[in-house]
Amino acid sequence: MKNIEMNWTLGHHAEKEQMPSAWVEGNVPGNAQLDWARANDYADYHFADNYKQWVWMEDCYWTYQTALDIPTSIEGQAVYFQAKGIDYECEIYLNDHLLTHHIGMFSEVKVLLTPYLKKENNLLKVVVFPIPKSHHNSYDRTQAVLSAKPAVSYGWDWHPRLVPSGIWDEAVCIVTASQAVKSMVVDYDLNLEQHAAKVNLELDFWGGNLVGGSYLLQVMDQDKCVKELPFKGYYTNFELTDLKLWWCVGHGEAFQYDFVLTDLETEQQISRKVAFRQVALVMNEGAYERTNTFPKSRSCPPVQMELNGQKIFLKGTNWVNPEIFPGTITDARYHELIDLALEANMNILRVWGGGIVNKDAFHHYCDEKGMLVWQEFPLACNDHPNEKQYLKVLKSEATAIVKRLKQFASTVLWCGGNELFNSWSGMTDQSHALRLLNSICFEHDPNTPFLPTAPVMGMGHGHYAFFDEDTQQDVFEWMFSADCTAYSEFGMPSPAFENTIQKIIPVEEQFPPRPTEAWKAHHAYGAWTEQTWLNAHIIEKYFGKSEDLSTLVARGQQLQKIGYQCIFETARQKQPYCSMALNWCFNEPWPTAANNSIVDYDNQIKPAFYSIKDALRPVLASAQFQRFSYDAGEWMEMDLWMLNDGQQQFDGLNMTVTVCFGEECQQQYWNGIAVKPYENTVGPRLRVKIPQNHQGLFNIKLSVENHSSLDSTYDLVVKQMVKWKDAVAVLNI
Amino acid sequence: MKNIEMNWTLGHHAEKEQMPSAWVEGNVPGNAQLDWARANDYADYHFADNYKQWVWMEDCYWTYQTALDIPTSIEGQAVYFQAKGIDYECEIYLNDHLLTHHIGMFSEVKVLLTPYLKKENNLLKVVVFPIPKSHHNSYDRTQAVLSAKPAVSYGWDWHPRLVPSGIWDEAVCIVTASQAVKSMVVDYDLNLEQHAAKVNLELDFWGGNLVGGSYLLQVMDQDKCVKELPFKGYYTNFELTDLKLWWCVGHGEAFQYDFVLTDLETEQQISRKVAFRQVALVMNEGAYERTNTFPKSRSCPPVQMELNGQKIFLKGTNWVNPEIFPGTITDARYHELIDLALEANMNILRVWGGGIVNKDAFHHYCDEKGMLVWQEFPLACNDHPNEKQYLKVLKSEATAIVKRLKQFASTVLWCGGNELFNSWSGMTDQSHALRLLNSICFEHDPNTPFLPTAPVMGMGHGHYAFFDEDTQQDVFEWMFSADCTAYSEFGMPSPAFENTIQKIIPVEEQFPPRPTEAWKAHHAYGAWTEQTWLNAHIIEKYFGKSEDLSTLVARGQQLQKIGYQCIFETARQKQPYCSMALNWCFNEPWPTAANNSIVDYDNQIKPAFYSIKDALRPVLASAQFQRFSYDAGEWMEMDLWMLNDGQQQFDGLNMTVTVCFGEECQQQYWNGIAVKPYENTVGPRLRVKIPQNHQGLFNIKLSVENHSSLDSTYDLVVKQMVKWKDAVAVLNI
Repeated sequence: MKNIEMNWTLGHHAEKEQMPSAWVEGNVPGNAQLDWARANDYADYHFADNYKQWVWMEDCYWTYQTALDIPTSIEGQAVYFQAKGIDYECEIYLNDHLLTHHIGMFSEVKVLLTPYLKKENNLLKVVVFPIPKSHHNSYDRTQAVLSAKPAVSYGWDWHPRLVPSGIWDEAVCIVTASQAVKSMVVDYDLNLEQHAAKVNLELDFWGGNLVGGSYLLQVMDQDKCVKELPFKGYYTNFELTDLKLWWCVGHGEAFQYDFVLTDLETEQQISRKVAFRQVALVMNEGAYERTNTFPKSRSCPPVQMELNGQKIFLKGTNWVNPEIFPGTITDARYHELIDLALEANMNILRVWGGGIVNKDAFHHYCDEKGMLVWQEFPLACNDHPNEKQYLKVLKSEATAIVKRLKQFASTVLWCGGNELFNSWSGMTDQSHALRLLNSICFEHDPNTPFLPTAPVMGMGHGHYAFFDEDTQQDVFEWMFSADCTAYSEFGMPSPAFENTIQKIIPVEEQFPPRPTEAWKAHHAYGAWTEQTWLNAHIIEKYFGKSEDLSTLVARGQQLQKIGYQCIFETARQKQPYCSMALNWCFNEPWPTAANNSIVDYDNQIKPAFYSIKDALRPVLASAQFQRFSYDAGEWMEMDLWMLNDGQQQFDGLNMTVTVCFGEECQQQYWNGIAVKPYENTVGPRLRVKIPQNHQGLFNIKLSVENHSSLDSTYDLVVKQMVKWKDAVAVLNI
Repeated sequence: MKNIEMNWTLGHHAEKEQMPSAWVEGNVPGNAQLDWARANDYADYHFADNYKQWVWMEDCYWTYQTALDIPTSIEGQAVYFQAKGIDYECEIYLNDHLLTHHIGMFSEVKVLLTPYLKKENNLLKVVVFPIPKSHHNSYDRTQAVLSAKPAVSYGWDWHPRLVPSGIWDEAVCIVTASQAVKSMVVDYDLNLEQHAAKVNLELDFWGGNLVGGSYLLQVMDQDKCVKELPFKGYYTNFELTDLKLWWCVGHGEAFQYDFVLTDLETEQQISRKVAFRQVALVMNEGAYERTNTFPKSRSCPPVQMELNGQKIFLKGTNWVNPEIFPGTITDARYHELIDLALEANMNILRVWGGGIVNKDAFHHYCDEKGMLVWQEFPLACNDHPNEKQYLKVLKSEATAIVKRLKQFASTVLWCGGNELFNSWSGMTDQSHALRLLNSICFEHDPNTPFLPTAPVMGMGHGHYAFFDEDTQQDVFEWMFSADCTAYSEFGMPSPAFENTIQKIIPVEEQFPPRPTEAWKAHHAYGAWTEQTWLNAHIIEKYFGKSEDLSTLVARGQQLQKIGYQCIFETARQKQPYCSMALNWCFNEPWPTAANNSIVDYDNQIKPAFYSIKDALRPVLASAQFQRFSYDAGEWMEMDLWMLNDGQQQFDGLNMTVTVCFGEECQQQYWNGIAVKPYENTVGPRLRVKIPQNHQGLFNIKLSVENHSSLDSTYDLVVKQMVKWKDAVAVLNI
């Protein structure tokens, strides 16, 4: 097997039959627009609204080409071009012979080059079509309704209109025997009680469905071979006993076996990781009891994750594409971000349907680290019609996605896409696209659960503000009365860091912020309501006018920190009926000026990251408050909890609750607390008199004797605006 | 083509390899148990608890056999045995050669006999296995969880434990050319705007997938040929323009074309009806508005039926198997019952999943008459596990059901089965059986909607009592506050007619009714609660003790009449958010002593039938009351309506409301009412002072000037028990 070097150039043209009038260096994997802009010294698209200069690139054809230097002696071998992802529609030519027409960026393109190879001067050409647009009536995500291309790049409330195309994932030209094994496909039936699995292994060959040869399969547990199996043909099956299971982080080891396959004729070896786990969505505890009157309906559908028979509280976040141009995402970028999510004590990433389906590196790392993945198909907030050509492409794309990602133990949930059953989308349970996706998942991966969309009934999305102006409730109030089986999205916006704002907003517009083109382009204004995501009026409501940018940023980020802490802890208190809490969103694909993310484009960590990290510790002291702000002289109430979503247990813990209004502190106690595995413990309701003389923030600290790692701390506020300097003093910022 | 006569005998045996020790006449179609009982003079299983004497028959093998007198010259032809339904598992032998092993009563069995035919003395044998039981821990419906056999016969709250088996649908032995056409399969894509359909016709041959010959297809509109198409091969497709659509009753003609196919070589003709319609479930009006607060969930799934682009209010009933022994159901029995449903102004039958999937005659008649069919698969109130062998049988059965019934225009809704998502079943959206059924329906009939079960979210089942003892609300009260998208089941029990009770209950137990074995066997006691379905205590609550059986029956049937009228009219008033009202149930498979049915086993019509018939008139005057019973001296309120679910319109109608307390009557008026097509009109809220001196029932009559066919009348009650004789006088019974 030999890789043929490819050196790509690319250029654009208006009609398919034309050739580019100019060529620039092409990066593969990469994206055509980036290459063109780099070569032509375009201004940084992160700054102000520079990205608008790229818009013309949407409607071009982009032709990639490379010479192929094929060895003279390839007898008995074939030459293939294989691209893991070409975005979005393309034709592939060798020496001007059309080899294939392909639609869809998530299904591999593999073409046999041999028949049209010349002795020399071989030229491979990939003609990428203009981005799909179902209409030209509006310039938004609805243009994506007839394609399986992620809708986010058509413009979103945190993503500019910048639609990439090109060869975005690995592409190789390879000389190999047709009967060489390309990959091992492993399925299994797990018997949890007997710690055993019936394993079915099938080989995939470069030349397609061949008969196969003679092989030796070795199943390795580190250096120890636990199974050695010679076989002939293209598949085998066997039983593995004394099975080690794969667990998600916090609940056990993310154990992986190595499957090593040796071709006994060629001695060629390939290997892959294989992990074993059983996953299910089971009814949320108490769900049946909520439908006890006539006329009787059904109960909310199950969204309680069960892994290897253990109910797991899903705590995590919504993952969005970490780059606008997905061709530029590196393994390292995936690793850094996933490492941060792990550091925040998260156990699941919802790969949101508006963005891309990730490259293999993402999934390999999640498998390795025990990070669960909720995988959506590329549908979001759109009404994809029952249109045959669209459904045909969706079928081939989705089949490819399922066959690729079901090989990862971390893929624990399939989902049709984002918010498809809400009024702004308009799809329903009857939509062919979703019935198709259910069918495909059931055919290829029946033992992994499938949701048609999120939210399903019982799940909640939102709110995305510290203070809801419609109901006049703050985050503590709406979370107190919420009763969801799962919080699969909730946001809490904050301004970006000052250094980011300085990088993306013209200096003369930086303070005070106002709805200029640059601020709007970066979603500080008009992203959803007029004020989102900066929400300066809410920051002002609690802290008064900010005198400079750094003050505004600190205050806004402080509200985000308090708000996210509240939602995550309240959701956990509502366990077991509630089974999940995922904030919107984790990361971002470019530097925003304000956003709900907790890690910014440059991997800078917002203060909320740390309150979330604390709220998601397996075991912690926790309190529930009815409101964020109180009147002087009022009795404030708080319910005490010990939260535990894992295996640890404690006996006889003693908690001290210290409430400080400035220097003036009171203490109360909850002693002799037993904490059982996988179970919350609810404590007493304490009452605290708010002093008449206090204004502004005050602090509650829950301290657990001899277990300071379980301590928690909260900031609430006494109405009447406080001067920011005093607040800073209270908060020790 | 020639039919070979078959004269069946049958007998039972304990082990599969044995032969029966005695033979009796076998009726085909029919059921083994009935034949055996008839020949052996078993007492009538309708009487008392005689059916218990049949129980031993569940665990037998039943062997059917018949001699076949095959003509000597069959050259160029083949001999087939075809059975449309054998219940439930069987082996088929010709001259002791095993031809097939088949599982499932809804998929056709077709076997080629030719290879094992002898010159004479040919003997065909069908060995029917004991009924499937997944366990022996309890003697109830849960024994059916590993089979696709309808669960009802394992015992239900209106069906005795009597499990049929045998050759229950038509079976023929036929001599024919293998290349003879067996049937025409027609699919189409409809273009509503252009009144056109792209039609795809495919031939099914006796000998399986053959190449086909030369044919002439004629599409007939009565005697007029609208398309004549010669073709060769096994399929053709063409366009039909100026299309006449198929409509359900009340909204247009149930138009059917005749497709006549002539084999140009043999001149053999076959024909079938083909009808064209477009059907969808669309969002219920106002459903999106009900989820407007954060955290935001999805809205209730769409259950508003749209036929040919017109929203239709579904008004109908739950159809249960009209016989315990389905082999005995005749075309006439189907026709009589469907005619009664049509007479009651119903437009849909929900073929409930606990019972059988009906024979072709049922569906032909529904197509002809414009009666819509909601078709469930044979799953009800059970938790069918993710078990491979079960799913395999379910797949073949469901595929056969879908391929057969999708050919009927009246099949407008597929549904996985009854109440599968409720606590007493325990299946969920993740259950493999339901994901499989969705996949099968989507593959073979994507344009007909699919529900996993009923109720889905927003749909209501129940109540099944005039008075809810838990909430202390009567039917008017719980319907007043209900807010469902659809009422797919609601019951209102009544005692059977006196002549039925006299036929099934030993004379000495007939009055007063009490929970003897006979009354319990016929579901008057202990069917659900201790008191259901007789509910004598509720009858007594309103009318006092009944002094004889006929009084009790009349009172109970009167409550049923009032209750059903209330639910149907209230559901229609809640249109358009509400889109459906189906009572539980229409008919019954044997004579019950008390039941929610409105037509009894002997086709006797209960009084409720007529109040339902009135409530389901396309246009009617209607009123909404908050309660059934009032205090003397109280102000009673009623909202007036003109209901209209069809095309008619009226202008300037004048309504007189006459409220009579015995002889004492008051009148109020609602004048100048406009009634628009497909739209209800809400009128004023009237207030009526209940006189101090009245007790017992009183009557409200809505009279529409010059349109007495729109009049409606209601009976309510003033608290304090009234003597029955007075009530009779008031009601003019």
